[in-house]
Amino acid sequence: MQSKLLDKINFPSELRQLGINQLPQVAQELRDFIIDIVSQKGGHLGASLGVVELTIALHYVFNTPEDLLIWDVGHQAYGHKILTGRKDIFHKNREQDGISGFPKRSESEYDAFGVGHSSTSISAALGMAIASKLKGDFDKQHIAVIGDASLASGMAFEGLNHAGVTDANLLVILNDNAIGIDPSVGALKDYLTAVKEGKNPRANNIIKSLNFDYSGPIDGHDLPKLISELERLKNIKGPKFLHVITTKGKGLQLAEEDQVKYHAPGKFEAKTGKIYPSNQENLPPKYQDVFGHTLVELAEKNLKIIGITPAMPTGSSMKFMMEKFPDRALDVGIAEQHAVTLAAGMATQGMTVFCNIYSTFLQRAYDQVIHDVALQNLPVIFCLDRAGFVGEDGATHHGVFDIAYLSCIPNIIISAPINEIELRNLMYTAQLGLEHPIAIRYPRGRGEIVNWQQPFEAIEIGKAICLQKRGTKAILSTGTIGNNVTKALNSISNNNFSHYHFPFIKPLDEVVLLDIFNEYEEIITIEDGTIIGGFGSLVANFYEQKGLVIKISKLGIPDFFIEQATVNEQQQIAGIDVITLQKFFSE
Amino acid sequence: MQSKLLDKINFPSELRQLGINQLPQVAQELRDFIIDIVSQKGGHLGASLGVVELTIALHYVFNTPEDLLIWDVGHQAYGHKILTGRKDIFHKNREQDGISGFPKRSESEYDAFGVGHSSTSISAALGMAIASKLKGDFDKQHIAVIGDASLASGMAFEGLNHAGVTDANLLVILNDNAIGIDPSVGALKDYLTAVKEGKNPRANNIIKSLNFDYSGPIDGHDLPKLISELERLKNIKGPKFLHVITTKGKGLQLAEEDQVKYHAPGKFEAKTGKIYPSNQENLPPKYQDVFGHTLVELAEKNLKIIGITPAMPTGSSMKFMMEKFPDRALDVGIAEQHAVTLAAGMATQGMTVFCNIYSTFLQRAYDQVIHDVALQNLPVIFCLDRAGFVGEDGATHHGVFDIAYLSCIPNIIISAPINEIELRNLMYTAQLGLEHPIAIRYPRGRGEIVNWQQPFEAIEIGKAICLQKRGTKAILSTGTIGNNVTKALNSISNNNFSHYHFPFIKPLDEVVLLDIFNEYEEIITIEDGTIIGGFGSLVANFYEQKGLVIKISKLGIPDFFIEQATVNEQQQIAGIDVITLQKFFSE
Repeated sequence: MQSKLLDKINFPSELRQLGINQLPQVAQELRDFIIDIVSQKGGHLGASLGVVELTIALHYVFNTPEDLLIWDVGHQAYGHKILTGRKDIFHKNREQDGISGFPKRSESEYDAFGVGHSSTSISAALGMAIASKLKGDFDKQHIAVIGDASLASGMAFEGLNHAGVTDANLLVILNDNAIGIDPSVGALKDYLTAVKEGKNPRANNIIKSLNFDYSGPIDGHDLPKLISELERLKNIKGPKFLHVITTKGKGLQLAEEDQVKYHAPGKFEAKTGKIYPSNQENLPPKYQDVFGHTLVELAEKNLKIIGITPAMPTGSSMKFMMEKFPDRALDVGIAEQHAVTLAAGMATQGMTVFCNIYSTFLQRAYDQVIHDVALQNLPVIFCLDRAGFVGEDGATHHGVFDIAYLSCIPNIIISAPINEIELRNLMYTAQLGLEHPIAIRYPRGRGEIVNWQQPFEAIEIGKAICLQKRGTKAILSTGTIGNNVTKALNSISNNNFSHYHFPFIKPLDEVVLLDIFNEYEEIITIEDGTIIGGFGSLVANFYEQKGLVIKISKLGIPDFFIEQATVNEQQQIAGIDVITLQKFFSE
Repeated sequence: MQSKLLDKINFPSELRQLGINQLPQVAQELRDFIIDIVSQKGGHLGASLGVVELTIALHYVFNTPEDLLIWDVGHQAYGHKILTGRKDIFHKNREQDGISGFPKRSESEYDAFGVGHSSTSISAALGMAIASKLKGDFDKQHIAVIGDASLASGMAFEGLNHAGVTDANLLVILNDNAIGIDPSVGALKDYLTAVKEGKNPRANNIIKSLNFDYSGPIDGHDLPKLISELERLKNIKGPKFLHVITTKGKGLQLAEEDQVKYHAPGKFEAKTGKIYPSNQENLPPKYQDVFGHTLVELAEKNLKIIGITPAMPTGSSMKFMMEKFPDRALDVGIAEQHAVTLAAGMATQGMTVFCNIYSTFLQRAYDQVIHDVALQNLPVIFCLDRAGFVGEDGATHHGVFDIAYLSCIPNIIISAPINEIELRNLMYTAQLGLEHPIAIRYPRGRGEIVNWQQPFEAIEIGKAICLQKRGTKAILSTGTIGNNVTKALNSISNNNFSHYHFPFIKPLDEVVLLDIFNEYEEIITIEDGTIIGGFGSLVANFYEQKGLVIKISKLGIPDFFIEQATVNEQQQIAGIDVITLQKFFSE
């Protein structure tokens, strides 16, 4: 493929040399460039294809990086990255020592604010705009581009509500494509759809009620229209809101037709968009699918079961339950706070609620877990997906803090299965009826066992399991990282360790811990959560509170943020991959 | 005072025996009862006075406790408590072994959901309503009463946004008095004011755009009107929204006139409302005022300083900065998530942001601290007010989790001054320019030092202080609980301990910790945060990671929720009050 105009554009300053009539060609070339690389390397496709024209128009009209541009979430910022100095390294997108899949301040001055989690852009841009005003800079532009799914999250509303009473020079651009990763939901989405269809007069809309200068909706693929509207808005002071309609996956027919699949399609044929078939027979299942299918299996017998997902029906595999029992499985949108307290409300009425939230996103509902669930000791079942390292999404998305931030909360049970069968049995046990809330944390990706659909067995809460008993040193692990331990031990010549698996991080198995104290000289704990405040810390705390002194070495996530890479590379950095463990055990 | 009708009402069933024409008298008696008790015992006054008629109307019209009634926040629920079985114990409101100042499930079947933090009611009530529908109960009513300040918080929007696409039997009642603890702020508030003043046609309002059956605004002190409207709404299915206008402090003239002061006025003369003068000369100041005055002092010289408070200008004493530098001190409303990311946005532009949030409310912005501040290593200065036990507000409001939930986050400095002077110097040091975000945690209430306005001195980050050096056991404390240690040591005959104060929980003073390891046989750590994941745990972690083995005993908040009582009583339960420490050190 030969890119004539794009070849000469490395920065927006070069883009701005072109005439408006040349920009559609740039759009075509940029779209082709994105498709070309993503088809070979994977990554997020649909969102960036949808905003190709908007990206060009923004950098054409505004004086970036002096003007500050924030992409909410950042899945859609590939075009932005390519036009702002990273075209030549874009083939290392989401790779170790490459570039992040999200805008990131340390990567480029054009990335005004690091993103990853949704709905932060309005608050951040408003903060910048207020700062500019205080510094006497009244011309600087501050732009937040936010999707309709992100706009429905409470944090975005908080930002709008504040911005509306300021005279800050803020432009919020709603990239309305009616879809996040899955289709958008909620009353706001219905409202926006009505606006788009002309059923609501613009003058009375919600945004205008919040004191914004509202304009739109306009076609987000019409470059001249985008540019003239942005030029107009550039000269209006105070909070402004432009409603732009785009199509996710624009320009690649299959991506437009199946927007969920083409959010991050993996590798595909660039020309046709056809996703390459992958041979997945005889592979163990994804933990997500184990969750999804098991929930349906349990829900068939236990009519009190309800499933909740905040905007991740596909990613979490809650979709299976939504298909089978639509009344009993709810996608509440990007609304983790609401999801948790909704679950709490249901639990007061005797329902058995499986609230599936990615570990990293439960950070958004931390207070609700403490205040609405744990304090009232309501038996909500939290399934914490993507616990541990998440790989290519990088530092914003790791699920490594949950053990630390949950274990200080009274009443809550924290569990981490070592494989699919244990995940199933934990889910089975939880829905039998517990007297406490429970968190079940499990990682992204595939499990260990092909033949995973075994009959259910109840698990005794708080019981640890001895996997191997040898020597004077005891290894204590929790969750799937225990499989790395097993693999490492099985591959060293001097396999002279005992290995205990703790499916329960809280409560700990105190009987086993006392036995371990009596039988071993040294303890090594291993986890895929932060060492600070993690499983190892809880083990140490148990001994300290008993007045028992024993040597404990703790392996886990160190005290710094770990960037994009494969999960194995990230585990290497933390020293908990199989190879590093082999060395550690051989020393 | 003789209450003729109220004397006979212990439960709503008795209220429902009365005619509508008798209810105004009940309202008068209930108001007098609340004023009578609160004037003697303290507590939250204004909010409950404002909803006396609404409380009576709700219990009169709806079949509580079968119908489920949730009071958002719960400051306004005194009348509800008095009418639902707790009249005779109401004089023990907010006392140890008395009743909670907030609705609480374990206290009464009429308290459908425990509250304390704002904006949870819509989500909880919606959860209950969806559960009822699934159970086939189509007549049960689910009612959330929420103030306009709470409605502006993102979580409430998330609840509305979901409810609007359900057919759940939910009634949201907006108790619009234009004030939370301080006057409400934000664009929604301006909008509601316009609605009230008839400047906006009801038909096009925001709530209606979210698919609610909207009615109002109506006068919330007009009992017949309230009752007829509630009767009408009882027969409408699906999500409904009633806009009710009330006056906070209604019925006590001074409370109506100064609504901020009479939110929780302390003791006062029941008849006149006059607050008793208290002799506060020669008392050490409140930490809140130390924060507030010091911020102004610093902001006078450092023009980059900005203050942010989410709806607590009075409680945090940010009001001093708001009065002095209105452009540089922002009350963003009950919007902790927004507050933190707004601060992050400002910090990217070189501003020095003091973001003051109660420790318990920072739980609401946990993800923003991780994702927007710490990950980008932005030097936001978090002042965590009301760290440790909070006393009468009880379990919902303690600031005891912050050390655990913050210390697992890379990049952040965590500090806890022992007195006012150190608080001032930490604030001074922070605004000199740090390379990391910092949290400065300090308690509710008065300090130790009357003559606290000393010249500023910079503090070396991470440095611990030896307060006393004796014997073979070292006591390590952090924050103001160190004063309990000093008092206990000074009052025992065998004062043979060393005492180290750690103003920095993270980073720890590793040099001092190694010295301590070499010099002492045993370590005792003391803190007013959770033992799990707290300061003691970090000290232990340091030694474990160095391979050093030493006996450590950790004192702090145990692993259960501690209910309303005085701070001293709560410290007794945790074993960290002066008397218990005396005993502990004497053993």
